[in-house]
Amino acid sequence: MTTDRRTLLETFENSFPGRDYEIRIRCPEFTSVCPKTGQPDFGVLQFDYVADRLCIELKSLKLYLQSFRNAGIFYENVTNAILDDFVAVVAPRRVVLTAEFSPRGGISSTIVARHERQA
Amino acid sequence: MTTDRRTLLETFENSFPGRDYEIRIRCPEFTSVCPKTGQPDFGVLQFDYVADRLCIELKSLKLYLQSFRNAGIFYENVTNAILDDFVAVVAPRRVVLTAEFSPRGGISSTIVARHERQA
Amino acid sequence: MTTDRRTLLETFENSFPGRDYEIRIRCPEFTSVCPKTGQPDFGVLQFDYVADRLCIELKSLKLYLQSFRNAGIFYENVTNAILDDFVAVVAPRRVVLTAEFSPRGGISSTIVARHERQA
Amino acid sequence: MTTDRRTLLETFENSFPGRDYEIRIRCPEFTSVCPKTGQPDFGVLQFDYVADRLCIELKSLKLYLQSFRNAGIFYENVTNAILDDFVAVVAPRRVVLTAEFSPRGGISSTIVARHERQA
Amino acid sequence: MTTDRRTLLETFENSFPGRDYEIRIRCPEFTSVCPKTGQPDFGVLQFDYVADRLCIELKSLKLYLQSFRNAGIFYENVTNAILDDFVAVVAPRRVVLTAEFSPRGGISSTIVARHERQA
Amino acid sequence: MTTDRRTLLETFENSFPGRDYEIRIRCPEFTSVCPKTGQPDFGVLQFDYVADRLCIELKSLKLYLQSFRNAGIFYENVTNAILDDFVAVVAPRRVVLTAEFSPRGGISSTIVARHERQA
Amino acid sequence: MTTDRRTLLETFENSFPGRDYEIRIRCPEFTSVCPKTGQPDFGVLQFDYVADRLCIELKSLKLYLQSFRNAGIFYENVTNAILDDFVAVVAPRRVVLTAEFSPRGGISSTIVARHERQA
Amino acid sequence: MTTDRRTLLETFENSFPGRDYEIRIRCPEFTSVCPKTGQPDFGVLQFDYVADRLCIELKSLKLYLQSFRNAGIFYENVTNAILDDFVAVVAPRRVVLTAEFSPRGGISSTIVARHERQA
Amino acid sequence: MTTDRRTLLETFENSFPGRDYEIRIRCPEFTSVCPKTGQPDFGVLQFDYVADRLCIELKSLKLYLQSFRNAGIFYENVTNAILDDFVAVVAPRRVVLTAEFSPRGGISSTIVARHERQA
Amino acid sequence: MTTDRRTLLETFENSFPGRDYEIRIRCPEFTSVCPKTGQPDFGVLQFDYVADRLCIELKSLKLYLQSFRNAGIFYENVTNAILDDFVAVVAPRRVVLTAEFSPRGGISSTIVARHERQA
Repeated sequence: MTTDRRTLLETFENSFPGRDYEIRIRCPEFTSVCPKTGQPDFGVLQFDYVADRLCIELKSLKLYLQSFRNAGIFYENVTNAILDDFVAVVAPRRVVLTAEFSPRGGISSTIVARHERQA
Repeated sequence: MTTDRRTLLETFENSFPGRDYEIRIRCPEFTSVCPKTGQPDFGVLQFDYVADRLCIELKSLKLYLQSFRNAGIFYENVTNAILDDFVAVVAPRRVVLTAEFSPRGGISSTIVARHERQA
Repeated sequence: MTTDRRTLLETFENSFPGRDYEIRIRCPEFTSVCPKTGQPDFGVLQFDYVADRLCIELKSLKLYLQSFRNAGIFYENVTNAILDDFVAVVAPRRVVLTAEFSPRGGISSTIVARHERQA
Repeated sequence: MTTDRRTLLETFENSFPGRDYEIRIRCPEFTSVCPKTGQPDFGVLQFDYVADRLCIELKSLKLYLQSFRNAGIFYENVTNAILDDFVAVVAPRRVVLTAEFSPRGGISSTIVARHERQA
Repeated sequence: MTTDRRTLLETFENSFPGRDYEIRIRCPEFTSVCPKTGQPDFGVLQFDYVADRLCIELKSLKLYLQSFRNAGIFYENVTNAILDDFVAVVAPRRVVLTAEFSPRGGISSTIVARHERQA
Repeated sequence: MTTDRRTLLETFENSFPGRDYEIRIRCPEFTSVCPKTGQPDFGVLQFDYVADRLCIELKSLKLYLQSFRNAGIFYENVTNAILDDFVAVVAPRRVVLTAEFSPRGGISSTIVARHERQA
Repeated sequence: MTTDRRTLLETFENSFPGRDYEIRIRCPEFTSVCPKTGQPDFGVLQFDYVADRLCIELKSLKLYLQSFRNAGIFYENVTNAILDDFVAVVAPRRVVLTAEFSPRGGISSTIVARHERQA
Repeated sequence: MTTDRRTLLETFENSFPGRDYEIRIRCPEFTSVCPKTGQPDFGVLQFDYVADRLCIELKSLKLYLQSFRNAGIFYENVTNAILDDFVAVVAPRRVVLTAEFSPRGGISSTIVARHERQA
Repeated sequence: MTTDRRTLLETFENSFPGRDYEIRIRCPEFTSVCPKTGQPDFGVLQFDYVADRLCIELKSLKLYLQSFRNAGIFYENVTNAILDDFVAVVAPRRVVLTAEFSPRGGISSTIVARHERQA
Repeated sequence: MTTDRRTLLETFENSFPGRDYEIRIRCPEFTSVCPKTGQPDFGVLQFDYVADRLCIELKSLKLYLQSFRNAGIFYENVTNAILDDFVAVVAPRRVVLTAEFSPRGGISSTIVARHERQA
């Protein structure tokens, strides 16, 4: 399923590949649906990555994230699946994805997943 | 005593066991009773863990924490006992439990306990 | 039901009845139970009142509020019932009770009820 | 169109109609779609009302607001339409609806609409 | 001079003219140039208005405000001139424009201008 | 008792008696003793007054407030007694004294007393 | 003494005298000297005024306020004297001067003086 | 002198000595007297310790800290003396004591002292 | 292109070259233009550097940054280009440039680039 | 020049030289004069040091810092000069001086210098 979504992600060439620099992208408007209750979930997603040859194009990232709007998927899974897509398309030197979800039943969750390219 | 409570905790399978990722769960509505004064205590509990094969199911965690509502137990003990139950049921790679309790007599307490699985 | 609880409230004599002065009491540790779901509710109660002949005794107010710990009662009703008890026992010149409840299902509620003595 | 949605709203009887008290309901998870761009909008809705014979049931309000999730509607219109539905179903003595929308193009909007029952 | 700029502002019809409701628009990215020093000024502009027959179209407002980017104009004058343009095009029932400018020489300024339509 | 303390308060002549201007004095280091429990109380006192012929001298106010350090006195009484002393010595046109006390048993209190000179 | 200082204040013509609009000027870097102790005082001065025919020129205001840097003068007096100078030079329709001084001996003071032109 | 005070501190047995866990105790109501000026000092004390066989009993800690209320002692000395007493009675694996004192003469001080048990 | 801009940067001699000390310069008023949309971008730039023989002159840095006001350039490129210019002119022992850009389409970006002189 | 100033700094003996403990002193009221423009500068100075045999006496530090009130000196130089004086008089085991200066021309600077005693 996420394979199709992945095609929404576009990149542009990193003009400064000789330098290890960090890009932080904060997306406070993520929403998906809980597969158990059918209720909407809301979260803030943050990507911290070091580009290699490619940078993520922001508008395509926005559209990619919007494709989850009516998808039913658990917190842990959506975070890891998005990280997998990001790694597959952008191939960063390293990336951390932090997903903070709004409280449900008085309890709030944050998932932090990371990927580092093998040398 | 905590052995019975432990059965309230439920888990689901970790879909991404190949990746070390962190799950933070913040529970600001914990309440128990001071065994000395009989007065209610209030606290914020936060779990930071790395799942191995299992993830904690959030609703079951909520019900488990509610089971302390009328239990008489000291700060230090309740924090360590909850950590023990969590470790016994979820068997995480590592976990930190932080419990911040509301001020009593102008003094407030925070307990931080952690567990790391032996290699 | 609240008639019995009412006996928990104690007062002391206002030493400055010749002056209209305000007393604000903030109680951030209120908890009761939702009668529909059986789940605990949490709230912050604030009394703003002008004493006439009597002031509320704080420790008795604390014990009175604790008597709701395991009672099943709706937000609107608990706020108005507590105001009625306060008015019946303290007979203030005027009082405002503000009750802010923790979010449930992503929605949070605040109830504000007031009473003014007829001249 | 909003006539159908309106049937989602449920009420319960106000147990304290003899007192003018205020109910504030804050819904930080509202989302709809911009009819011009097709892009999702996000907002925080707050109702401040004085009940007459009826109070709004919170879960039904949540489901009612969720029905806008994929609807295309402008800020000004959605705010006024929701106020109209609320007034039609709850018939409050008075109500203020405040809708704060997330920034778009560096500009953020808040709409405040109110209704007072004719004496 | 501002007459030309004024043509950048576009409106759409107010769908709820029977109700006096408030629209707040916050624009934190205003910049112009100090006519004395040639240095850029930065400010946050906020419009609070009650629409009559017309509402301001947000994208046109953004482009209108951007037209000041390289214009040399004093704080007091730019605030009043923008208010005049807004009133001429939107003809609101009433409007308040608040312009908070960034500190210069350790001193920061805020200008608040308002207009109310004659009955 | 407070009569003696009162002699600690010193004043200086108001140089601008022709203008009604406000003086706010904030004293975050007030402490006294609870007469019931013997435990220390802590509070923030704020005076908002309009001087007539006299202004309070700040150092004398500090020493006056320090004289309560080991005195046993209730919240409501200490606030009103200090207001009485202030009025007796400074004879302001009007004064408001706000006393915010630190939480005890999870409950915090604020007392607001005011005095206006009869015309 | 302040008569000389007054000549430092410069004005420019108000281009919108037909409108009552407010100008707020915040000066967080005011410093003078305590005449009693010789110690420096620090404060934040804020002017809120409605111009008539003249507006204050900001750079001249800065230089005027700097002229107090080594002057020995009490809080109440410096606030009222500055207000007098401002009124004499700018002749505003109305003005409020708020001066918040840094804590001394654990006590902080704020002086608020205002002037309204007689009709 | 502090030897006598030390007897006020009481302990209870650590039920989880097999685990290195941290206890943070925050005491915002510390007050003593400056030995030079006779003026009261105010501070916030925070203990961060890892218990060995004993935990500090909170009420006894409160009474111990209150014993400094009328004692004349410098910031650096009171912090180190309290740490010495704590170490002597509780014998923790390690402890950090942070003491933040309120500003005097526009200057505020924080003292951080630590002790680690020799292996 | 940036080569010309570079000549705007001026330096002065570091008077304490024998000590490794850090200089942080925060510039909250950076603005450039998006090369794709032609819309203005806004950002906060922060330089953290350790000077070697030269320090950056602040006024020249301000003018240099203003030269981007009407330049069309992407986030990643502008950050790296500014770092290159800074390194070329100031030759610091090390420098980190952090650029936080305002949200666009609900997404905000921060770029962090660093340079360390080879030993 | 700073040699004379240095004599203003006084010390007292460290009573706990056997322990490495940190002393933080925060001075938010530093002011000097820009040698280029003649305009006053304002800053917050913070000393973090570990005493050896001597501690700095706070009142003498205050008077020392006040001696810069009318001195013309650059940010980088004043920070390093003060650090040199501190080290010469107090001879601490280590010390960090952080100086945050108020914004000028929309740009604010912070200087961090440190000194460690050679073993």
